[in-house]
Amino acid sequence: MEIISGGVCAAQGFTANGIHCGIRKNKDKRDLALIYSQVPASAAAVYTTNLVKGAPLYVTRKHLTNGKAQAVICNSGNANTCNADGIEVAEQMSDLAAKALGIASEDVIVASTGVIGQPLDIAPIAGGMEALAAGLGAHSQLAAEGIMTTDTKRKELAVSFTVGGKTCKIGGIAKGSGMIHPNMATMLVFITTDCAISPAMLQKALSTDIQSTFNMVSVDGDTSTNDMVVVMANGMAGNDEITGEGADFDAFMQALNTLTVYLCRCIAADGEGATKMLECKLTGAKTEAIAKTVAKSVICSSLTKAAMFGSDANWGRVLCAIGYSGADVDVTKVEVSFSSCKGEILVCKDGAGVAFSEEKAKEILLEKEIDILIDLHDGEGSATAWGCDLTYDYVKINGDYRT
Amino acid sequence: MEIISGGVCAAQGFTANGIHCGIRKNKDKRDLALIYSQVPASAAAVYTTNLVKGAPLYVTRKHLTNGKAQAVICNSGNANTCNADGIEVAEQMSDLAAKALGIASEDVIVASTGVIGQPLDIAPIAGGMEALAAGLGAHSQLAAEGIMTTDTKRKELAVSFTVGGKTCKIGGIAKGSGMIHPNMATMLVFITTDCAISPAMLQKALSTDIQSTFNMVSVDGDTSTNDMVVVMANGMAGNDEITGEGADFDAFMQALNTLTVYLCRCIAADGEGATKMLECKLTGAKTEAIAKTVAKSVICSSLTKAAMFGSDANWGRVLCAIGYSGADVDVTKVEVSFSSCKGEILVCKDGAGVAFSEEKAKEILLEKEIDILIDLHDGEGSATAWGCDLTYDYVKINGDYRT
Repeated sequence: MEIISGGVCAAQGFTANGIHCGIRKNKDKRDLALIYSQVPASAAAVYTTNLVKGAPLYVTRKHLTNGKAQAVICNSGNANTCNADGIEVAEQMSDLAAKALGIASEDVIVASTGVIGQPLDIAPIAGGMEALAAGLGAHSQLAAEGIMTTDTKRKELAVSFTVGGKTCKIGGIAKGSGMIHPNMATMLVFITTDCAISPAMLQKALSTDIQSTFNMVSVDGDTSTNDMVVVMANGMAGNDEITGEGADFDAFMQALNTLTVYLCRCIAADGEGATKMLECKLTGAKTEAIAKTVAKSVICSSLTKAAMFGSDANWGRVLCAIGYSGADVDVTKVEVSFSSCKGEILVCKDGAGVAFSEEKAKEILLEKEIDILIDLHDGEGSATAWGCDLTYDYVKINGDYRT
Repeated sequence: MEIISGGVCAAQGFTANGIHCGIRKNKDKRDLALIYSQVPASAAAVYTTNLVKGAPLYVTRKHLTNGKAQAVICNSGNANTCNADGIEVAEQMSDLAAKALGIASEDVIVASTGVIGQPLDIAPIAGGMEALAAGLGAHSQLAAEGIMTTDTKRKELAVSFTVGGKTCKIGGIAKGSGMIHPNMATMLVFITTDCAISPAMLQKALSTDIQSTFNMVSVDGDTSTNDMVVVMANGMAGNDEITGEGADFDAFMQALNTLTVYLCRCIAADGEGATKMLECKLTGAKTEAIAKTVAKSVICSSLTKAAMFGSDANWGRVLCAIGYSGADVDVTKVEVSFSSCKGEILVCKDGAGVAFSEEKAKEILLEKEIDILIDLHDGEGSATAWGCDLTYDYVKINGDYRT
């Protein structure tokens, strides 16, 4: 397996584009993205569990009932959520993309991200569609920019791997910065691969993978209304189609996981206002479920996040978050260390504080990527969760997001 | 029923005091408080559900097994939590207070609040105890100051009410500003009354009341390790002891509730860094449990809290928080309004946005006390939750709390 360039266009037969069509006022910000597969592809998706769902999710779910898709159309700047005409507008977006590409509207995946509850004007999308489609090419970067909201960085990666002697590629783009606390599904992530895999196995791979990847990321505890992860697999790599478990499926899962873990880290690091990426590595839990619950509780604690912003080794807040997680934990066995590229420091053992150098702790915590290492000493379950610090800028960004 | 002065010393036979003994470095901050009843009192308490519990909670729970107490000793500046010698130190605190007061150590309630995981030195407490006890008087304010941590305001109130023809009084003090997300119990709240009531009925009154009061407050989603609510009832009002349900118990419950709702509002308004108190009034839920879950989800949403800080009528975030609450809600029926002393404005009906004046909304949201009014139009269940906005200062306070 190898990291390669090309993002969402790395796999054979996929092209993409991103433009400013006028949904956003700022002309320097792209607001419409298109991803296209030369041939129809197997497609799988997972969606937010929020009861309030963006209109595009309903349309996409309907279009994916046959497990096939050929394109993704996505706008930023407006979530098309809680609007009376939402479904209608999402269907129009799909129709417009289908017409421009000469494919069936049922083969288009529709997504939107941005402010909730403001009607989405179809006019700029209709006006920009022709140019968007005409400009399709190896433009993963432009598409990645087109789906960004408060993101400060593009998020893309691609990986090559081997299935049945054939070289396959898988790549993806993601957006996600605030309103990030996935539950079953998450943010907007579009993944493309030329690996041949049946819709059922593609869905299985995706649904399994997100449990330990996107569902373990939290920026602010708010589960968005619009998030989805979509994978399209067009089979152009020429491998024998993966239709069941086995070595080929494992190779695909591994490549998918490499990509998704990377995108998780990107999303956590680019959390709204974040100055640090936090990774909570939990070991020694009675079960994996307990490990996940505890790791996520720590990564979601506002007090822990604020302490990390201040590079303060306030491990008591980590213990506190372990204690209120609701999971079955023997708090008298808990061990906590902080680490970064500057080293590792033990701060709590057997649930109580140990003497440590505040100076060394500060040096470690001043870094941009911090690991919170927790060993529950109570079993073999482990999990990793990703998050970020809580900063002035998170408040600033969200205090006047609409204006 | 009438609001009266005197706080935790309003009820007959109760005195209190608060001093600086040296746990905190800042000599202007009181760090040790004592409350004393002239005669032994019925006592009831509720405690945090955090698995990590402060050592004083274990000692207090042991002392209250007989439903009787005569004094409360509480320090601020150090939580005495996650310390190897915690129980021992909490017992020493109790013994010292008992000795100074000439009562049994088993009749002392012990509490601590402050930083977690730093050993609590008993020396300053031992050194200050004599002066603390000698200065007991009608000093509710001093005691209220002695239990404050990041609180910016004293929190105290008293109420007079009538039971069986006798005038009774109930009063209390509270601390709580950060790490506030009670679950079954909450913050530090000490309540005294001269009403005669059995320990069992006192516990029943308290356990019932907190479900709709302290358990409905959230500042930051972090459930503290040390929180407790304690009531002492010394019977000096001379009423026939309340030993069962009926009009007398109802009168007591009503007075208790008036006090606790007031303290909840104080705690929410004084949330760390808060500039606004938020009250979410939820009506029309299928059940009361659903109403509570939804109201608390809204009050806990970081994005909603940040929007309120910016006086931004971003009701989409309210809908989002309703949607991910996990409760059974028909999101197509939801109605949302914002209100304050400047008026009320409807922003969402049938789960979708309605046209409204942004100018008027801004005027309403610039106030210090904001009501978020939600009608689920789905039943008779209702609930109220209290919280505050998320501000730069919350981050500032918690970015370097220890240093």
